[in-house]
Amino acid sequence: MILEVADIRVKTGQQVEFENAVKIAMTTVFTKAKGFREHNFHRCIESPDRYVLQLTWDTLEDHTVEFRGSPLFTEWRSLVGSFFAQPPQVEHFELVSRSDTKPGVA
Amino acid sequence: MILEVADIRVKTGQQVEFENAVKIAMTTVFTKAKGFREHNFHRCIESPDRYVLQLTWDTLEDHTVEFRGSPLFTEWRSLVGSFFAQPPQVEHFELVSRSDTKPGVA
Repeated sequence: MILEVADIRVKTGQQVEFENAVKIAMTTVFTKAKGFREHNFHRCIESPDRYVLQLTWDTLEDHTVEFRGSPLFTEWRSLVGSFFAQPPQVEHFELVSRSDTKPGVA
Repeated sequence: MILEVADIRVKTGQQVEFENAVKIAMTTVFTKAKGFREHNFHRCIESPDRYVLQLTWDTLEDHTVEFRGSPLFTEWRSLVGSFFAQPPQVEHFELVSRSDTKPGVA
């Protein structure tokens, strides 16, 4: 499994609409994507226009090749693209370590 | 609960030592910190000198006031500070949404 971390800046004043659009996408787009496992979505406290969206995929290619090459990517961007203040910064990560306890937020 | 996200760049060639230092800190430093809950620690695939360390705290002040003002912060930085290529970018987040399923990596 790999973790996609998307660092997102949205246009000022469009936070509520953006959050709603992500929630819709999570139930209508990503659930159909091959290899998608789960997500978490966080709002920044210090920078109110910043969000971090993290998605877990079975493989890197499930995101970079399969998803980005599918109509689902177009659906996703049509839902949220207009809220971006700049292109999201997206990279992928592999786990080094984590607490043994069940995660609450992280 | 709040999520601390530290975006870290380490000096080239010091990744293994840095990962080991973080593992030590997780068992010797953060377990003593008031309000610390858990962590996850990820290595970037595209940028091998980049890591994302995420820590869950009961409150923002548990990290920004209590921890940073305590000797534990000095211990933490003495373990990992020499590996940083630049000051880590650290901000705090509150949860907007997450999958209902138990997290695997995210």
